[in-house]
Amino acid sequence: MKKIINNVDDMVLEMCKGMVKAHPDKLVLSKKYKIIKRKNLNQNKVSLISGGGSGHEPAHAGFVGTGMLDAAVCGDVFASPSTIQVYNSIIETQSKKGTLLIIKNYSGDCMNFDGAAEMALEDDDIKVEKVYVNDDVAVKDSLYTVGRRGVAGTVLIHKIAGAAAEQGMNLLEVKDAALEAIANVRTIGFAFTSCTVPAKGTPTFVLGEDEMEFGVGIHGEPGIAREKIVSSDELADKMLTRIIEDLKCESGDEIALLVNGFGATPLQELYILNGSANKILEDKNIKVYRTLIGNYMTAIDMAGASISVLKLNDKLKGLLDFPTDTPALKF
Amino acid sequence: MKKIINNVDDMVLEMCKGMVKAHPDKLVLSKKYKIIKRKNLNQNKVSLISGGGSGHEPAHAGFVGTGMLDAAVCGDVFASPSTIQVYNSIIETQSKKGTLLIIKNYSGDCMNFDGAAEMALEDDDIKVEKVYVNDDVAVKDSLYTVGRRGVAGTVLIHKIAGAAAEQGMNLLEVKDAALEAIANVRTIGFAFTSCTVPAKGTPTFVLGEDEMEFGVGIHGEPGIAREKIVSSDELADKMLTRIIEDLKCESGDEIALLVNGFGATPLQELYILNGSANKILEDKNIKVYRTLIGNYMTAIDMAGASISVLKLNDKLKGLLDFPTDTPALKF
Repeated sequence: MKKIINNVDDMVLEMCKGMVKAHPDKLVLSKKYKIIKRKNLNQNKVSLISGGGSGHEPAHAGFVGTGMLDAAVCGDVFASPSTIQVYNSIIETQSKKGTLLIIKNYSGDCMNFDGAAEMALEDDDIKVEKVYVNDDVAVKDSLYTVGRRGVAGTVLIHKIAGAAAEQGMNLLEVKDAALEAIANVRTIGFAFTSCTVPAKGTPTFVLGEDEMEFGVGIHGEPGIAREKIVSSDELADKMLTRIIEDLKCESGDEIALLVNGFGATPLQELYILNGSANKILEDKNIKVYRTLIGNYMTAIDMAGASISVLKLNDKLKGLLDFPTDTPALKF
Repeated sequence: MKKIINNVDDMVLEMCKGMVKAHPDKLVLSKKYKIIKRKNLNQNKVSLISGGGSGHEPAHAGFVGTGMLDAAVCGDVFASPSTIQVYNSIIETQSKKGTLLIIKNYSGDCMNFDGAAEMALEDDDIKVEKVYVNDDVAVKDSLYTVGRRGVAGTVLIHKIAGAAAEQGMNLLEVKDAALEAIANVRTIGFAFTSCTVPAKGTPTFVLGEDEMEFGVGIHGEPGIAREKIVSSDELADKMLTRIIEDLKCESGDEIALLVNGFGATPLQELYILNGSANKILEDKNIKVYRTLIGNYMTAIDMAGASISVLKLNDKLKGLLDFPTDTPALKF
């Protein structure tokens, strides 16, 4: 295993420290519970918390800041943060308007975030609402989920809910905005290589020289099929066909497009994939209103990418365009 | 070779198209000469042009926009753009105040950018000044250079010169600001894996399971030594020791720190490296005024990273802090 690392046991905490050192104007670290929070919390807006296993950087702590999250809770690599960690993030960021938890739909995350919300309500009388992101069209149930997995589309939910909260909406309004975005976002990915979980030290799976895992999850979980590699144009077509069918996108629709790298795939290739995606969308008269491209929701050092589509209406467009200022997304 | 690609011959043009599609509010593509320009050029400021071989994305086209470059000229992968390409970028972005070329110190780039500047002066009477970035402390001369190579520090030169131009300085003032930054920036990198140049299809070099190339160039050129991998703390120490000695950094100095990934190294590891670097700098009482962290100057799909240090004074701090709005850097 070749990684920039000191030791496996301390790596998540060291990563958190290095991240906060890079963005001292925006972030603070609550070390004991590995919570990365906004430097300047606002008690008069709904608090937004997300998080999950580490290994998806910049998700989720990279999206802490004005117009997006108030805190991200960092679990071990590919392992949910504990109930106590999440509970403390609720306590440390509580506001007069309540808290919304944005949870990727994995069984471990659901259990621990749900438990924390219950604890905060019972012990501290804090109003906590929850939404579950399940954007991955690849598989119905999976190794770690009942229902679809929550993957890169989660970043767009942070953006939409974050804008709603920043605009002063109340807890149920922010939750409604998040649910509306969740209902309209879909993602699918593929892997050219496996990731290597540091604690294991060897690749999670092995692919042949000319093979890819189509529909892979963001922890290297199996997807739909192990297939021969195809061209960028064919890849984009395979991916968008599934997404568009599932989302019931039609000619004239406007979308946000997220072309997301899994960690080891260079921007060069993501740009080529974006070009391929645009040709297909133009053919179908689906208009790309805004594009995000780069490493947003990674799978440690996996080579591969995902495409997410968020179908927009005027309300979602307004929230998408609202300014944000976080380490990993600013506009 | 596993890449998201249609075919090797068209990949740079396809990449340019996919990039401009992702950022239609900021960028336009001049297809014939593979020049990516600002959408809204300003004839009343000094024009700034950079570029070089492709494969370093987001450099350089990702830094085209307000507060940084006016155009980036895209050569083939790891090959300088031609004199005619650079000449046309000068013509297409000419301003009333003249043009500054920011050139990474590689023999091919120097020859072609120099030739283009001469052509623009002789044929079109356009004032063109040039600066050469040579920030790599690893080697004195190299495979492709007389003198030190120009690497990730170039991004900081784009930022400093871009701010000077945006503030309305004249051509010689902008050049002076760039030269002052060049005199104060140093970089060193290491590779854990080779990159794979698409036209070749196989890795440029091979490293053992426990080896790294210390001092590697951004095209996979040899560095100082092939060594055993060390911890993040030791890596940061080896890198910063060379930089600080060369820059004559002292207790009390303020710096900008650029922790740059080479393409296949995830942000997770860059954050750990940043934490290690900060511990060393704190010990030496060198203050990090601003940090950039992520993939800024890549080597296609190489795993590895570089650290750049820009020693600051009040003038450089002011220029560094000036707002910028480009696809790859915004603040």
